[in-house]
Amino acid sequence: MRAVVMRNSKLVIDTVPDPVPQEGELLVRTLACGICGSDLHALKHADKLVEVAREGGTPFTLDLRRDVVMGHEFCAEVIDCGLNTSATVRRGERVVSMPILFRGGRVEGIGYSNEASGGYGELMVLSASLALRVPNGLPTEHAALTEPMAVGVHAVAKAHLDAHDAALVIGCGPVGLAVIAALKLRNIEPIVAADFSATRRGLAQHLGADVVVNPAEQPAIEAFRQAANLRPAVIFECVGIPGIVHQIMRDAPRDARVLVAGVCMEDDVIKPLFGINKELALQFVFGYTPAEFADTLQAIADGKIDVSPLVTGRVGIDGVPRAFDELAHPDAHAKILVEP
Amino acid sequence: MRAVVMRNSKLVIDTVPDPVPQEGELLVRTLACGICGSDLHALKHADKLVEVAREGGTPFTLDLRRDVVMGHEFCAEVIDCGLNTSATVRRGERVVSMPILFRGGRVEGIGYSNEASGGYGELMVLSASLALRVPNGLPTEHAALTEPMAVGVHAVAKAHLDAHDAALVIGCGPVGLAVIAALKLRNIEPIVAADFSATRRGLAQHLGADVVVNPAEQPAIEAFRQAANLRPAVIFECVGIPGIVHQIMRDAPRDARVLVAGVCMEDDVIKPLFGINKELALQFVFGYTPAEFADTLQAIADGKIDVSPLVTGRVGIDGVPRAFDELAHPDAHAKILVEP
Repeated sequence: MRAVVMRNSKLVIDTVPDPVPQEGELLVRTLACGICGSDLHALKHADKLVEVAREGGTPFTLDLRRDVVMGHEFCAEVIDCGLNTSATVRRGERVVSMPILFRGGRVEGIGYSNEASGGYGELMVLSASLALRVPNGLPTEHAALTEPMAVGVHAVAKAHLDAHDAALVIGCGPVGLAVIAALKLRNIEPIVAADFSATRRGLAQHLGADVVVNPAEQPAIEAFRQAANLRPAVIFECVGIPGIVHQIMRDAPRDARVLVAGVCMEDDVIKPLFGINKELALQFVFGYTPAEFADTLQAIADGKIDVSPLVTGRVGIDGVPRAFDELAHPDAHAKILVEP
Repeated sequence: MRAVVMRNSKLVIDTVPDPVPQEGELLVRTLACGICGSDLHALKHADKLVEVAREGGTPFTLDLRRDVVMGHEFCAEVIDCGLNTSATVRRGERVVSMPILFRGGRVEGIGYSNEASGGYGELMVLSASLALRVPNGLPTEHAALTEPMAVGVHAVAKAHLDAHDAALVIGCGPVGLAVIAALKLRNIEPIVAADFSATRRGLAQHLGADVVVNPAEQPAIEAFRQAANLRPAVIFECVGIPGIVHQIMRDAPRDARVLVAGVCMEDDVIKPLFGINKELALQFVFGYTPAEFADTLQAIADGKIDVSPLVTGRVGIDGVPRAFDELAHPDAHAKILVEP
């Protein structure tokens, strides 16, 4: 199959062996796959990713001397299955799945594994037990957004929000937008969202932000205070670059809870005294549960999350390296889909 | 009065004006005052403390060009009161108090203020509304430990422990020992405590640790796993130097909650990926509520917290600078009391 391959920290287009479904697995044809900010980070920092996972005791192995086909936000069509595989989906049906493959007693991260290639290739194998049929009538491009939207649903669930909580979302890239959509699903009000990009602030409003703020014009926390008065501050960090957690800790009010949903792969410097003086809480979040993933698909299918404006670009396999470059400029795009 | 004065980042013995009680205030004679690790830090980093408080929006002002008399862990005898002051304590009675003075619409931190001198001097003024009578029969030296023990009671309260939680305490200085005592009060089991010092590990056992570990011989988290199996990990950081939070994040199991009770006044470097990969939570804690302070005094008076082995040294005012030097070697001491 043709695929975008991560090789020596570069993206190259190449023909690689077709994946072969084993017992309990489906062979699927990629219909659409979102490009995730984590993939941009990983291209630069994959070695760091592997090193930190090993050092921190997280089961994650990736041999960077071998090819990796990234892409973990996908919708695909079932074309075959392995031996002795019972699945609730049939050939020709469209599916989404958490990007996880159970194989040989191991858990492989689809798109971040040498064994489980992702949606930047024409074909993938999925664990049949995790595949969810796309509800009738839901466009493929919207179904492909289940994964990034589930990230927001999970982050909001981990915040354990009360009815009197108000939310401040720092950064309105795909993670921030997913958080805003998930906050709206829970009727949290007000939702205040901050981003330097006017395009992204517009998307934030579309997805449910009550107030948007350009941090170049007004500090985000000040806009939050105006909108939420003295209600407890729950702050979602959705930027994921060094220095943001420091800024949030500096600006947060006393007793604020910070959900760290951005994926910063570099070392970061904090001033613990900000945390101590104001008794701040930082909850790091990552991924989602199978139930949250399924609920997110259903919420999109039911029209409770309108993802339609998020798709701002489409490329074939050959266009992926250029799309990575374009996504470095955050104002131009929300989500670019790869359609092999 | 005679006092130990912080002047130009040095401790000097000098005679300074007696404090004068205003309306609602008590004049007290210091009977015993513990030397706190924060005071050692503050002597080195007071400028940082002031700068970070201002930058982070915490109401805390301290003019380092003027004298400061530190000391915030005290037991004192009432000798007079200001005009129109109704108090539940009388002259000659012993009191403890949260180290806070309400004056002129401001909140002064006793011992960290130019206006409210602390227990390293012969006399102090206290807010009458915060003064708690020492129960009959409780030795003065034990009452003076109310403040550091309340720090542990508060840290444990902020952990919102369930009956199935188990605790790992990193560092068995006064903060760690207070946390252990507070965990024991709540019947948390097992309590695993780590410190390089054999003396401190002995104190940890005395205060209720079920397992003690020397991190030079076995990683603390490994000892915790042996004692607690797969129960959720609640880890108390009670060291407060740069690098400890990083180590804990690296070694913590998935979903661990970390209570940061150590007071690190310097910048610190973390690897966010540890937090993200394992969905860790960091709750910074500081101080205590008035109710926690009163409960702690009562727990000590009732013999539920046995603080007697914590007092490892006593000095007069002239001995304070030397005691600061001695406390830099953690194996020799837990708490040194100043008895002016």
